[in-house]
Amino acid sequence: MNRVGEQTFLYEHPPAIVSHASIVGPKEGRGPLASWFDTVLEDDILGQKSWELAEMEMVRRCAKNAMNQAQLSDEDVQAMLGGDLNNQIIASSFAARTLGIPFIGLYGACSTFVQALVMGAALISGGFLENALCVASSHFCTAERQFRFPLELGTQKPPQASRTATACGASLLAAQGNDNALRVTSGTVGRVIDLNITDANHMGAAMAPAVFDTVAAHLSDTGRRAEDYDLIATGDLGWIGRDLLLALADAAGIDLPPEKLIDCGASLYYQEQDTHAGGSGCGCVASVSCSWLMKRMEAGELNRLLLVGSGAMLSPTSSQQGQSVPGIAYAACIERSKV
Amino acid sequence: MNRVGEQTFLYEHPPAIVSHASIVGPKEGRGPLASWFDTVLEDDILGQKSWELAEMEMVRRCAKNAMNQAQLSDEDVQAMLGGDLNNQIIASSFAARTLGIPFIGLYGACSTFVQALVMGAALISGGFLENALCVASSHFCTAERQFRFPLELGTQKPPQASRTATACGASLLAAQGNDNALRVTSGTVGRVIDLNITDANHMGAAMAPAVFDTVAAHLSDTGRRAEDYDLIATGDLGWIGRDLLLALADAAGIDLPPEKLIDCGASLYYQEQDTHAGGSGCGCVASVSCSWLMKRMEAGELNRLLLVGSGAMLSPTSSQQGQSVPGIAYAACIERSKV
Repeated sequence: MNRVGEQTFLYEHPPAIVSHASIVGPKEGRGPLASWFDTVLEDDILGQKSWELAEMEMVRRCAKNAMNQAQLSDEDVQAMLGGDLNNQIIASSFAARTLGIPFIGLYGACSTFVQALVMGAALISGGFLENALCVASSHFCTAERQFRFPLELGTQKPPQASRTATACGASLLAAQGNDNALRVTSGTVGRVIDLNITDANHMGAAMAPAVFDTVAAHLSDTGRRAEDYDLIATGDLGWIGRDLLLALADAAGIDLPPEKLIDCGASLYYQEQDTHAGGSGCGCVASVSCSWLMKRMEAGELNRLLLVGSGAMLSPTSSQQGQSVPGIAYAACIERSKV
Repeated sequence: MNRVGEQTFLYEHPPAIVSHASIVGPKEGRGPLASWFDTVLEDDILGQKSWELAEMEMVRRCAKNAMNQAQLSDEDVQAMLGGDLNNQIIASSFAARTLGIPFIGLYGACSTFVQALVMGAALISGGFLENALCVASSHFCTAERQFRFPLELGTQKPPQASRTATACGASLLAAQGNDNALRVTSGTVGRVIDLNITDANHMGAAMAPAVFDTVAAHLSDTGRRAEDYDLIATGDLGWIGRDLLLALADAAGIDLPPEKLIDCGASLYYQEQDTHAGGSGCGCVASVSCSWLMKRMEAGELNRLLLVGSGAMLSPTSSQQGQSVPGIAYAACIERSKV
């Protein structure tokens, strides 16, 4: 049985997360989760000639770290699933060029890492792959100049804006794995939801309805309640979007206890780091889940996590043409000790 | 058995192509395949305010046509897999917003349609979905202004350049289907290959090595030879890339008979239509395969087709930074009458 309900994959053979790696930039390395990350970069450029090349190098290093931990070489990994925010996902595809691993390019904006987990787990549970590397990245400097303004302008951000994290996370999934391994047990594919937010800086508001829709679908499909999870981690609604999600759940009569709910974007920085609404970007939920969340699960602090990645499906062109900002969310249930 | 060899999914339950739809622009509608397309548009704008909105509307209409043929409503379709060339794949994601179907956004540049077939077939064969809508689009005007120059400049194209097709193709896959249905029987995931082509106009040269790599992997994985296929259809190498593929195969000692090989980009326009190297864009291989190729298969002219979609993984930023143009290719084997 590989399916349940309307939108949820129930993995008959839940793949193990055999390794995970995270890498973050200097600002993220001064935040509250600093000690959890595998690598904190000293600068944003990694010795490269451009920020885009730096992001590619970040993806390559993070992917290699995950593979090294699992003692797998580039030739051993059967597929790399991932993406990033750069136009035509060049950070991921150029990293895949260097690694030489068969590549499945995804685009779910900031939800891409969870989208990769959902799809990678399906391909393994379905018997198509023995293993899969799921990866997503973002870089503050590549995102700013692409989506907003050249950094050199020193533009002020509005208070509802979030900060694109310089970060990457990678998880290596495999059909095999030890008895205590974390496993991806189910995954929910979201719909594109649009409540007509036209402020392209207001990511939390644009994405909260999609997160709500996917969480509601996941709970309905699996017949569970929020309290059946030790933690529901969204990424990345930020401080404002998190409150909106709680309000949407409340209005729909879905019990979403605030103490069960954290947001990766709201956890990545101290509020005094002046990131306004919190962190965002594909690398935020990827790096936070591949460090803090998975390490806490492995330590036995959490047994069942619902990881919900959300993305705002906008482009500068769609914003300039006055289009609203639709959101999408994918959810992956990660459990400890379930074979 | 859902897997064979290094890079190929062998679908244990090959999904049926229960319907397919194609829509093309006016120029494509004056080409040699005109009579095969379901819809030829009278203009490039479809009554919309921008070309990007026109491309979204093209995706929506094409998807609806495929669903109507299969007598399925938006609610009946369990997932839409697809993408396009627009930054942040806005044509597909905005169409998915209108349709309300759970959405899996993909990016494989011009290979996206075949990538969607490979992934959609895996999700159905693996028991995760009952049906899936695979769709990809491109639009000459959205691509020109994004990747090259504003149309208003009237810039001359070099002779090795291809023309991005204004086109969309959609195939609805389903677990069930009649005995004569076309079925997707295997799919190969490609690697990102880069032979250091730095001319961003020279798509055929950039992608031919990736097509060769994927075709070689597919034949090796399945233990077949090119002659085991009635036709190998690439998309989109154009006239020049097709010759390069034949040269690469010849150099590697792989027998690729020229009479078995057609290219969707080289088939879409008459040479006197002045499209230089031929057609390209996600919509080219999508529309040509969802019309001419699938209809010929249904008529019994072809029984086994290897459809190879190839994409150039460049962005304007990567080109401006002097990066070379890596390519990727996915292959899907489509067969008649195999349950």
